[in-house]
Amino acid sequence: MEESKRIIDYRPEIKVLDATIRDGGLVNSFYFTDEFVKDLFECNKQSGVDYMEFGYKASKKLFDVNKFAKWKFCDEDDIINVVGDNKGDLKVAVMADVGRCDYKNDIIDRSNSAIDMVRVATYINTMPAAIDMIEDAHRKGYETTCNIMAVSNAKESDLDVALEMLGKSPVDVIYIVDSYGSIYPEQMRFLSDKYLEVGEKYGKQIGIHAHNNLNLAFANTIESVSRGVNVLDATIGSMGRGAGNCAMELLLGFLKNPKYNLFPILDFTEKHINKLKEEGVVWGYDIPYLLTGRLNQHPSAAIDFTKEKRKDYSEFYHNLLDRD
Amino acid sequence: MEESKRIIDYRPEIKVLDATIRDGGLVNSFYFTDEFVKDLFECNKQSGVDYMEFGYKASKKLFDVNKFAKWKFCDEDDIINVVGDNKGDLKVAVMADVGRCDYKNDIIDRSNSAIDMVRVATYINTMPAAIDMIEDAHRKGYETTCNIMAVSNAKESDLDVALEMLGKSPVDVIYIVDSYGSIYPEQMRFLSDKYLEVGEKYGKQIGIHAHNNLNLAFANTIESVSRGVNVLDATIGSMGRGAGNCAMELLLGFLKNPKYNLFPILDFTEKHINKLKEEGVVWGYDIPYLLTGRLNQHPSAAIDFTKEKRKDYSEFYHNLLDRD
Repeated sequence: MEESKRIIDYRPEIKVLDATIRDGGLVNSFYFTDEFVKDLFECNKQSGVDYMEFGYKASKKLFDVNKFAKWKFCDEDDIINVVGDNKGDLKVAVMADVGRCDYKNDIIDRSNSAIDMVRVATYINTMPAAIDMIEDAHRKGYETTCNIMAVSNAKESDLDVALEMLGKSPVDVIYIVDSYGSIYPEQMRFLSDKYLEVGEKYGKQIGIHAHNNLNLAFANTIESVSRGVNVLDATIGSMGRGAGNCAMELLLGFLKNPKYNLFPILDFTEKHINKLKEEGVVWGYDIPYLLTGRLNQHPSAAIDFTKEKRKDYSEFYHNLLDRD
Repeated sequence: MEESKRIIDYRPEIKVLDATIRDGGLVNSFYFTDEFVKDLFECNKQSGVDYMEFGYKASKKLFDVNKFAKWKFCDEDDIINVVGDNKGDLKVAVMADVGRCDYKNDIIDRSNSAIDMVRVATYINTMPAAIDMIEDAHRKGYETTCNIMAVSNAKESDLDVALEMLGKSPVDVIYIVDSYGSIYPEQMRFLSDKYLEVGEKYGKQIGIHAHNNLNLAFANTIESVSRGVNVLDATIGSMGRGAGNCAMELLLGFLKNPKYNLFPILDFTEKHINKLKEEGVVWGYDIPYLLTGRLNQHPSAAIDFTKEKRKDYSEFYHNLLDRD
């Protein structure tokens, strides 16, 4: 009975974040058409998605505005051009990378901003800088998350320290981020429980951002849900770096809250995602990502292998093992 | 510690069965080249795979030998042509469908046969016929499995009866078969425990045959492993009906028994699986399968939709809901 209840019922605390522009933008350098982004905003609103992440708040001192499209920078005007006065329930998120964001200047007070949530992305060795950014965003009135990347490579003892630091910070959501897509569901269970323990102690929500290298992004996401993780990242068609992310269509198909609606996602896929693929934009689970994922390596070598349209998997795997 | 042990260590009892020809044959009417099948046999031997399923023992009275290639029928001579005297550890399996196999005549004594294992596929309402086939194969000296198909549609009370019947039969392995690919890992946990309870009571092994409609074939397979399921079906490149099966490359990448070796699978993929795809043979996870999977429907409508190269997902989903 308990088992059936967990599958049939739902937790109203669960929130879904669409990261299609931000993580998908890593595949096409953020060159989405305005129509794509506007349609995605409407699609997310109609699907009951809770947050839409527009892109990065990257520093224009560090990144050439001629080399990346606007969602690398997420200027207020560009967001307002899509969301208008945004009176609905769909909130706007942006990501700010430690060391790559001029947050003191570029992130303005929330009262003057179209943005609702600032997501601070950090590796575990830059936690103090991340917490400075979280405190800054919190003071300015934003909801905040901290996304500790590449957690599969972090030492457990370091992770314990980082989680305690975040527990004591004003951050709202602490994210499990499987950057290398190398975590199996059994391990995700263990990690979820670890994060949730800190979350319970300090009153924080826990989030999950999964990658699909081992074709487990969706499985890991719903595994973490079954433990109590409530903030879930997904992208339409899994669009995202390398093997991509948890597919929004799978996630909304799984969640039982009647506010979620699959039809707008299907229509968006037909109109926009299939078109991107036809135009030659490449992402998604494939053997090279399986190989970097199972070795717990950054997917960059697999991305190059895929770009070069190589198929000599054994040779590639030998090379990966040599560097392991 | 317990968690780490489970991920790092392995159970020597685990056996892997390659179902590429049998389930993959449903995609191309079994028209594999002899080179493909011979290379696959060598590949499986070198990868440490435990069983290779060649195809069906279909009755030639019921199926036209001109409409299907030889692996629909698995004549002894055709198997011997591939395996020779087969002195290695790789065992040969075939599938026999209830009502479609002239088993009393077509399955000869094991002492004269190249086949080691007969897998009896049945729906839950034909258990007595399945048990007659199992007893026949057992008497002739074969290892046997019973694959109860479409378990996601079976009533729990019927399933309990079927499992008790099988417990009392001479069958060696009882399979969980997720024909519609509609089972989530939480449910797989519950199902695995149910089957394992019967397995423990009667001294039977439990097997898993997953489908990838919800992109969960691999996740469900390793979920069942974590509960104690020991006999695992997979196919190279996930090749199989509709959304396909658990990918062999993912499974062997996960299993820690040093006897398993990924390189031959990678080479086989490069040489044969990519070629099949280039020739236009289509299978694998895609949105139409997601939709039939989440509705717990047979994938036939999704297979047709895919064949027709339709992309009007919403219209398709409306039609599925109408028939639900």
